[in-house]
Amino acid sequence: MNIPQSSFKRVIIIGGGFGGIALAKKLCKKEFQVVLMDKNNYHTFQPLLYQVSTGGLEPDSIAYPIRKVLQGYPDFYFRLAEVLEVDVTKNIVHTNIGDLKFDYLVVATGTETNFFGNRELEKNSMAMKTIPQSLNLRSLILENFEQALLTDDYHEREALMNFVIVGGGPTGVELAGALAEIKKGILPKDYPDLDTRRAQINLVQGSDRLLPAMSEIASRKAEDFLEQLGVHVWKNIRVESYDGNLATTNTDTTFETATLIWAAGVKAITLKGLDAGDLLSRSQRLLVNEYHQINGFEHIFAIGDVAQMESSDYPFGHPMMAQPAMQQGENLGENLVRLSEGKALKPFQYRDKGSMATIGRNKAVADLPKFKFQGVFAWFVWMFVHLYFLIGFRNRLVVFINWVYNYVKFDREARLIIRPYKRKYKTQLD
Amino acid sequence: MNIPQSSFKRVIIIGGGFGGIALAKKLCKKEFQVVLMDKNNYHTFQPLLYQVSTGGLEPDSIAYPIRKVLQGYPDFYFRLAEVLEVDVTKNIVHTNIGDLKFDYLVVATGTETNFFGNRELEKNSMAMKTIPQSLNLRSLILENFEQALLTDDYHEREALMNFVIVGGGPTGVELAGALAEIKKGILPKDYPDLDTRRAQINLVQGSDRLLPAMSEIASRKAEDFLEQLGVHVWKNIRVESYDGNLATTNTDTTFETATLIWAAGVKAITLKGLDAGDLLSRSQRLLVNEYHQINGFEHIFAIGDVAQMESSDYPFGHPMMAQPAMQQGENLGENLVRLSEGKALKPFQYRDKGSMATIGRNKAVADLPKFKFQGVFAWFVWMFVHLYFLIGFRNRLVVFINWVYNYVKFDREARLIIRPYKRKYKTQLD
Repeated sequence: MNIPQSSFKRVIIIGGGFGGIALAKKLCKKEFQVVLMDKNNYHTFQPLLYQVSTGGLEPDSIAYPIRKVLQGYPDFYFRLAEVLEVDVTKNIVHTNIGDLKFDYLVVATGTETNFFGNRELEKNSMAMKTIPQSLNLRSLILENFEQALLTDDYHEREALMNFVIVGGGPTGVELAGALAEIKKGILPKDYPDLDTRRAQINLVQGSDRLLPAMSEIASRKAEDFLEQLGVHVWKNIRVESYDGNLATTNTDTTFETATLIWAAGVKAITLKGLDAGDLLSRSQRLLVNEYHQINGFEHIFAIGDVAQMESSDYPFGHPMMAQPAMQQGENLGENLVRLSEGKALKPFQYRDKGSMATIGRNKAVADLPKFKFQGVFAWFVWMFVHLYFLIGFRNRLVVFINWVYNYVKFDREARLIIRPYKRKYKTQLD
Repeated sequence: MNIPQSSFKRVIIIGGGFGGIALAKKLCKKEFQVVLMDKNNYHTFQPLLYQVSTGGLEPDSIAYPIRKVLQGYPDFYFRLAEVLEVDVTKNIVHTNIGDLKFDYLVVATGTETNFFGNRELEKNSMAMKTIPQSLNLRSLILENFEQALLTDDYHEREALMNFVIVGGGPTGVELAGALAEIKKGILPKDYPDLDTRRAQINLVQGSDRLLPAMSEIASRKAEDFLEQLGVHVWKNIRVESYDGNLATTNTDTTFETATLIWAAGVKAITLKGLDAGDLLSRSQRLLVNEYHQINGFEHIFAIGDVAQMESSDYPFGHPMMAQPAMQQGENLGENLVRLSEGKALKPFQYRDKGSMATIGRNKAVADLPKFKFQGVFAWFVWMFVHLYFLIGFRNRLVVFINWVYNYVKFDREARLIIRPYKRKYKTQLD
């Protein structure tokens, strides 16, 4: 793979998400050769993907070129590559652009949308885990309204304006809120010749509360906010099938819809050669010890969403969020230095900084370790925190300006169908 | 097409470019029903496409939702539609979403890239007239460097880093300058493991000077600037074929390149039913009289790049730029009011405000009616004028911030391969 030999030990990091980048930043300053591989040439700030889908932000301002983050480090190499297999006996990573030996390997591949094996659902519904997926959803939402204008068929028009979001975690809640704001603030002005009051946003949650990873008060308040915005919240209902037209559930409730967004689960992106049953948790994440080492290996690690470090505080691993991934990347970076110096490793300790979700303008919920709050202040804190963790000064500035603009003008100007998604909907029911 | 009958006369405008938008803005304030059709739901600010291709700007900030520009006008309708045919006897426009009768029809479809019938060239080269095309080019440029890193083949690596731009008009000149700046400022930092000094930018012009529509001094100065930036300028050479690997010309000169960008010609986008030979100029533009009326029609008009209004000052029509299109849109708007009031029409008079091109930081050329200047001042004027004519306050602000950032940091952060173009190059020569 054209990577020169170095006098330093070679660490291969697979994945340029929050964990991989944090680790690479740490290691590049030390005596290591660092090779970071990713399928994309950019880091994605996933928490803001829903704003790309809803025309509030441009994709370019929540992405950042990986080469740029790590520019200037002499023994750093980025490779745009897809990993095909890991050979753990020979310590080689096989990729679509060639093979490479490693001294240390870190798997930081993250997660992808989990359709739990339901092919029909996967084919017909929209996911929102990557920038291209978010742009497809943006296009489809806008195309639906353009198409709704044209039809005389009552069912077809209703279905085109009916959005069903499955999954009441942060992604589902934030997307539902954003769509509700579009319905209220933008649709009546953009589509005066369409009765946009009939647009519906349905949020379907399998369990008995939204945001199950947050506090009860946050859940309750998030539901209140969504209902104030006109979102229909359905609890204790699981969507079981969707043929592109009709979504059925485990109850009598069904939804006739042209757009089903699936935010009801993620699964770890595992690699061939590191996917044996005894390496994986029940939810298919890579089991790791308190030093991020994968079962049975001293020099192969996993961090971030793909890893499951079980402890008494976190029996099912840490929450799948940016914070644990970044902290793990930093901890592993320090430990690799210790390892090479023959020092004892420091077990990972997660410092919970809390979690937040935003529902709409002036409406957010925040659970911090010491106190929980909701409303306007939580919303400002949410914005500040997200700006802070965005990579790159330009990105921060552009996102900030968009937010100020959207706030002052009640608008979202990036409602552009740059690449049409072109799934023409036709009702099959009447 | 679900457009309600109105007591006002119906004007159908085909195309939401500079001309179509200027006209619609004018007419919406008067007693007309205005129906604007476009293939996209956004207006494209074409003069800045080359900055999207070179990672300097995000696509969303040079596009603007058409519905938003004309929000709030009671008898305005936008339709996302492709026009299939115009029936000039029955006064009906046929589209992919249905038919619509008109009282007045305005063709403002603009131009597309002209490959002069050379299919091989069209298949293998990149065009840059639309946002998706510009994003494809952005992806390809970046993919080329990622691929150049991987090969041990000398010819292949050289060809991947060799960019051939055909056409020395503003598009070709501005793109060549931007690529040269990337070569100098970004490649060495992003690709320290690649000898990026070997990257080449070739600009090939068929005639004996660049920017032939501008003054001699502007042409000379633009060429100077490009050579200072390290661009190879080839004059009096016409590229005749390109098989994806080797470009041949009408001379002995050939270019082995993985990327040929074709900016050597445009052609009018004509419509079936309005494409009879006697309606078209030699360059296939719609011939119009001084009231923008198409030959033989009182109520069918053409404006902008697609129209050719021949006069003693402009024997081959007005220059294909934003200014004439906008002025024509405004003039036609006033004339349609006069027509409906039974008043005499006012012939169109083009007020030449000059033209400009930018080559790089602090390097631009400007021909204003009263004086011509080049260098830093021209560059600032160029930026100011482009910001002024961008639609939308948010777009202006975001573009401005990007420019300040890029200027101060010598950087362009939108170097993202959001959707890979994936044309894997393989040299066929060695």
